[in-house]
Amino acid sequence: MEQVTVSTLGQRYPIFIGPGLLASLDAHVLPLAPTRIALISNQTVMDLHGAAVLAACERVAPTRVLCVEDGETAKCLASLGSVLDGMAAAGLDRRSLVVALGGGVVGDLAGFAAAVYMRGIGFVQVPTTLLAQVDSSVGGKTGINLAAGKNLVGAFHQPVAVVSDTDTLKTLPARELSAGLAEVIKHGLLADLAYLDQTERDLPALLDGKADALARAIAGSCRIKAQVVGRDEREAGERALLNLGHTFGHAIENLSGYGHYLHGEAVGLGLCLAADLSHRLGLIGQSEAQRVWQLVGAARLPTAMPGLAVADMMTAMRGDKKAFAGQVKFVVLTALGRAQTRAVDDALIESLLRDHGFA
Amino acid sequence: MEQVTVSTLGQRYPIFIGPGLLASLDAHVLPLAPTRIALISNQTVMDLHGAAVLAACERVAPTRVLCVEDGETAKCLASLGSVLDGMAAAGLDRRSLVVALGGGVVGDLAGFAAAVYMRGIGFVQVPTTLLAQVDSSVGGKTGINLAAGKNLVGAFHQPVAVVSDTDTLKTLPARELSAGLAEVIKHGLLADLAYLDQTERDLPALLDGKADALARAIAGSCRIKAQVVGRDEREAGERALLNLGHTFGHAIENLSGYGHYLHGEAVGLGLCLAADLSHRLGLIGQSEAQRVWQLVGAARLPTAMPGLAVADMMTAMRGDKKAFAGQVKFVVLTALGRAQTRAVDDALIESLLRDHGFA
Repeated sequence: MEQVTVSTLGQRYPIFIGPGLLASLDAHVLPLAPTRIALISNQTVMDLHGAAVLAACERVAPTRVLCVEDGETAKCLASLGSVLDGMAAAGLDRRSLVVALGGGVVGDLAGFAAAVYMRGIGFVQVPTTLLAQVDSSVGGKTGINLAAGKNLVGAFHQPVAVVSDTDTLKTLPARELSAGLAEVIKHGLLADLAYLDQTERDLPALLDGKADALARAIAGSCRIKAQVVGRDEREAGERALLNLGHTFGHAIENLSGYGHYLHGEAVGLGLCLAADLSHRLGLIGQSEAQRVWQLVGAARLPTAMPGLAVADMMTAMRGDKKAFAGQVKFVVLTALGRAQTRAVDDALIESLLRDHGFA
Repeated sequence: MEQVTVSTLGQRYPIFIGPGLLASLDAHVLPLAPTRIALISNQTVMDLHGAAVLAACERVAPTRVLCVEDGETAKCLASLGSVLDGMAAAGLDRRSLVVALGGGVVGDLAGFAAAVYMRGIGFVQVPTTLLAQVDSSVGGKTGINLAAGKNLVGAFHQPVAVVSDTDTLKTLPARELSAGLAEVIKHGLLADLAYLDQTERDLPALLDGKADALARAIAGSCRIKAQVVGRDEREAGERALLNLGHTFGHAIENLSGYGHYLHGEAVGLGLCLAADLSHRLGLIGQSEAQRVWQLVGAARLPTAMPGLAVADMMTAMRGDKKAFAGQVKFVVLTALGRAQTRAVDDALIESLLRDHGFA
């Protein structure tokens, strides 16, 4: 088992990574001495992993299972309301615990429910997708969507522990495994060339679901994210670098209709565009930009851009919540393994998009 | 104009108290340089004070008015959703501002919306009831109700400023003025005998709506609350003392059906019960307990207890969110001007209630 520690201003918490951790979840929950537990998940995940986790929780405290819809639609105010009502009906108090079992959607929703129930109770992230294990379960961003956009409502609320069981990835569809690798590549690109090299070498093993390679990737990504979040929890500066590829990616995801691309797939496309943008700004060489495209493709992520309208992309990016008064900041690479944010002329972005087949 | 400063761990903000402050609200908002403003209120308050406040806001940034229903029913998830959708539609970004114009309901709801919109943006409290000016606008507790209970969902989110215009109290119904005085009496009882004495002397002037007496009471209450909140923002200990009278009060309010008693009226009854409980525990004398009852009555608050069932009261108090695993802690007086929390035997509470006409 690997362990990574996240230290933020107010809190310190461990991430446990390895095989077989679900069944012994009680070992990590017991020290928290919760009065009651709400196990928040969805039916698909419960069918796969629910029995082991529920049994482990019940060994610690009376546990109520609360299932939300499968998929991104669960990140809405109505689901939040039904989860909160369920928590109250189960008699959760300020010393109770939320256990979030599932992917990023469940983690974001359950984490937000924990953040606002009685103005904040503890929660444990038990991510079951690679994307959640390498990215969304760490760092304390929780939230839901509005009709106007993704993640427009939420809270910073750090978990008290993250338990990433690599065995859960055995049942993960290949497409979702690749989607998770987009964030792994992103972490290497923005912070650590050696980790990027390692990911490139490990790709065949990762795609093959080899446990040791996966644990190495999860721990590596968590370490990078923990460092960034530890220095800038509230995204006053450096944390914005974690949005590499995301301004383009969110716009593509949004305009294509949620569900068309997986989040990681849209981020993969965004990484390609961010790499080419960095090259056009004279920050990295063409061969470096090409290496990014190749790496994304080698992770079996799409690299063919969708034929979306340039004007729609620009509007969507201006509506991104990282924008201030309509000004978009892009995260660009100054080298492979180093990133910074900068404002970029609309004309440059428009020609970049046009050159890549946006209409 | 009086000014009180609140210092919490992460923040410092001013409370401005005096006549004529609404029209010059822009002076307090301008330094915040918001990109846009959402002015959240209800139609009743907008009819009385909206024009002045909207004009002041518009002098600073484009402003969108968002009205919620009048009354406690606005503190629900559906209203929250419509406010958040309205904020997104108005194009609010991370550097935008919420201005909450109204009583405790508007302040709690608007503050919570500001707390979760884009994971937290700034907000200014502009309380227009005495209750909100002396209590709920200060301290950063925001939230909404669930069907299962009041304030079960929320966040700690400090305002960037509080602007209490005493002129707004001129249009406040007498019953609501008295309700606000319940919290003023509470502050004296739990923290400051001299302030309690002053309140007692000022009561005729307060009930008569005299501006200088009101400003003195608001500033005094804010000072006490600011001290307590500054030492214990997240209610790990001392802040719980602010719940003096509230465990009884919430149960009475809840069981009588919301709307039957004003919150301050239920708190007044709770203060009477807490005083008698303190006497029965041998902590204060009978004459001191009687002085509390007299003071509550002199503030033109009800002191006749409702004929609610003792068993229902006990169940409601165990469901209070201050309870842990069903154990209720009561705030009791150890003297007039000094309080502490303690667990009390059910039997003692039951006989107290029975002696005061609970069935």
